[in-house]
Amino acid sequence: MSKKAILGHVFHAPVKGEFEHLVNACIEFDELGKISQVVTPDQHDYQSIVQKHQEQNTLTTLSDSQYLFPGLVDLHTHAPQWPQSGKGLDLPLFDWLNQYTFPLESKYKDADFRERFYPELVDTLIAHGTTTAMYFATIDNAASEYLAKVCKQKGQRALIGKVSMDEKSMCPDYYVEKSTEIALSDAEAFIQNIIAIDDKNGLVHPVVTPRFVPTCSTELLAGLGKLVQHYQCHVQTHASESDWARDFSHEKYQKTDVEIYHETQLLTRRTVLAHSIFLSESDKHTIKEVGAGIAHCPLSNMYFADAAFPLREAIDQDLHVGLGSDLSGGPIPSIFHACLDAVSHSRVREAGTNTHLMQNRGEPNTRVSFVEAFWMATHGGGLTLDLPIGVFQPGYLFDAIVVDTNAKHSQVRVYSDLDSPRDILEKIIVHTTEPAISSVWVNGNKVK
Amino acid sequence: MSKKAILGHVFHAPVKGEFEHLVNACIEFDELGKISQVVTPDQHDYQSIVQKHQEQNTLTTLSDSQYLFPGLVDLHTHAPQWPQSGKGLDLPLFDWLNQYTFPLESKYKDADFRERFYPELVDTLIAHGTTTAMYFATIDNAASEYLAKVCKQKGQRALIGKVSMDEKSMCPDYYVEKSTEIALSDAEAFIQNIIAIDDKNGLVHPVVTPRFVPTCSTELLAGLGKLVQHYQCHVQTHASESDWARDFSHEKYQKTDVEIYHETQLLTRRTVLAHSIFLSESDKHTIKEVGAGIAHCPLSNMYFADAAFPLREAIDQDLHVGLGSDLSGGPIPSIFHACLDAVSHSRVREAGTNTHLMQNRGEPNTRVSFVEAFWMATHGGGLTLDLPIGVFQPGYLFDAIVVDTNAKHSQVRVYSDLDSPRDILEKIIVHTTEPAISSVWVNGNKVK
Repeated sequence: MSKKAILGHVFHAPVKGEFEHLVNACIEFDELGKISQVVTPDQHDYQSIVQKHQEQNTLTTLSDSQYLFPGLVDLHTHAPQWPQSGKGLDLPLFDWLNQYTFPLESKYKDADFRERFYPELVDTLIAHGTTTAMYFATIDNAASEYLAKVCKQKGQRALIGKVSMDEKSMCPDYYVEKSTEIALSDAEAFIQNIIAIDDKNGLVHPVVTPRFVPTCSTELLAGLGKLVQHYQCHVQTHASESDWARDFSHEKYQKTDVEIYHETQLLTRRTVLAHSIFLSESDKHTIKEVGAGIAHCPLSNMYFADAAFPLREAIDQDLHVGLGSDLSGGPIPSIFHACLDAVSHSRVREAGTNTHLMQNRGEPNTRVSFVEAFWMATHGGGLTLDLPIGVFQPGYLFDAIVVDTNAKHSQVRVYSDLDSPRDILEKIIVHTTEPAISSVWVNGNKVK
Repeated sequence: MSKKAILGHVFHAPVKGEFEHLVNACIEFDELGKISQVVTPDQHDYQSIVQKHQEQNTLTTLSDSQYLFPGLVDLHTHAPQWPQSGKGLDLPLFDWLNQYTFPLESKYKDADFRERFYPELVDTLIAHGTTTAMYFATIDNAASEYLAKVCKQKGQRALIGKVSMDEKSMCPDYYVEKSTEIALSDAEAFIQNIIAIDDKNGLVHPVVTPRFVPTCSTELLAGLGKLVQHYQCHVQTHASESDWARDFSHEKYQKTDVEIYHETQLLTRRTVLAHSIFLSESDKHTIKEVGAGIAHCPLSNMYFADAAFPLREAIDQDLHVGLGSDLSGGPIPSIFHACLDAVSHSRVREAGTNTHLMQNRGEPNTRVSFVEAFWMATHGGGLTLDLPIGVFQPGYLFDAIVVDTNAKHSQVRVYSDLDSPRDILEKIIVHTTEPAISSVWVNGNKVK
């Protein structure tokens, strides 16, 4: 019964659109990382709980410059694209995929290459406070399973997909699955092997991952849907990322991406649709009914999406929605930065951009707040994944980070006489860089 | 004759839209910081110059993980707003000014308060590689002169304006100049005192700084114009930052901001107009004819500008244009980050945002490239200020930074087998954070 506890100042977002600031809260969790209680100084048993952990030497006490946050959830990131993060972004999407991305992803079949980059990526994301990441890997099973082993070894919660793409007319010949049959048997083998790697620890999860409609044959989508129903695992894919992607599906199937995924049984409570820029009202209704989720990737969208995701509406309609870095379509490996981008991008959407239009320039009342973005980065991400993470409450898992505003190279400046708790929260969201994240826990285990 | 030299890999942008990468270049500068020569290994006198500085112990040699860049130029930043950087950004501009900004700026008349924050700000900007900053200070002369002393003492090149604002109907009663006469005599005294502080070192410069049209009486603008003509000093102000600001000028004067500044003799070769979102064709013609410049502040614009500055057109029409952080309307004290924001904001403008529009959503061919943003951050900034900075060429001043991609907490990952010089440049622009900037020089003096 070796429970541990953390004592310190807490920010989290149990309710969408609001934040809770707890001063000197004590959070207790068990050996599996499950939170057993969260107590504050006004509660009658607070002193006895704190004292018990002090006596048992199981208490970690934070300083006044340190703030405890739920771990950040990255709902969409392409692990193999890490080495090119921050380059090629001047290119159009098609050239970026063919000149940079597909050649790079194909290299991971080489063990030396993946051993060079996957550990560095996972270390980087943990260092930036990402306690849970949903990864696209590559089409190569061995490489994708290696990524799962790296995440397990480093202690990051990870949902990992071997990428499925078999449509030879849409993929380069050096980076496409040999046949639909092989694609399906590889996808199933991957699921089984990840379940074996996880060994019931709940740290790494397999994800069925059709890249997107254009690169998948109709048979592949249908076959993957059957796997999802059989194994009840997560699904990730891209939906309506751009005008081109939307139009492709309409021309090939006379359907939207959401309709295609729904009909192939790929749309479930555990499906994460990246981007989803162009959704019909019917699509949104379907997503809500099923309980599927959306990974909003604002920085990537600025480069490649052709329009702004209607985030305000998604939040107001209670869709499951969280944030993704979309490495390397978005170059920054930080979900705090994704919060900043989500807010600023929503402001640009609200105002519009075209100075020649004196009216109807933007879309009024579509901004999102920093507090809403913070909710998406934590609690919203956990809800989207259907995992008990993202908020400090009994029954949830203790995935957490400490932002130390006094850490060397911290860019967060807090002035206690000038800054309210809301100010401090907003400053931390805006200014936290990697050096300010002094500790990271996943499942109650310290991983940074 | 104590010349010094730096030997290392260089990136700079002598020509707009292009970059130059010099391997093992040797840059020599004199005791005043003026560059005397830039030589590369293919030049016949390279070896003898390098050898001479080695023998004289006047050579600094960089490692292969270090890259030398021109110092970054921040054309628009509000020094007193530093303590609130990153907070209040959910508020509308009017509430943000009245609840946060004006109360904060008024505190700087208190010597303790300014001594607490101005040195921290200048240290922060230098640490982020800003070798030249154009500052709005406050209406208080003593506080604004103190900022100049801090910049001189810390060795940052600074153009500093005591803010002029006398229009009682538009300013809070606790933060407005007592009369137009006092405003003008204070502005003139400030110019004289900064010239005295500078003591012919060329490091700190006075700037005539009408806040913006709404807060200045007509007489104040006219009087400041006369001071500018007399002292031939720089000018900074806000122009057409929002629908409201544009409409205000039109209603009060039936003129654009540019027309108002031009008629009051405030528009000169050394004038920097912040934002300038809504410019008429005639305005742009006037700006170009006069040789005035524009400080583009993309992140601040996303929050407050109501539209996107037509940056593509400004670059193509050869207007003087550079980048500003606009602290704290923009919360990030980094001009590298402003480059990232300029590129992504231009992409959003090009594509448009409104998913309900299936055509005419954006403004085609208006993106700017990372290389263009880098030019703005360095050479373009220097041109805008009419100062010999921003590029490594004989006659220019040695203001420079070293980005060390191997520094502790550097987020820049360079892989020599995978990254071209263009890739390295883009990665450095996107990923450089404060810890990666290992050295900073201004006027040939090391200041970080």
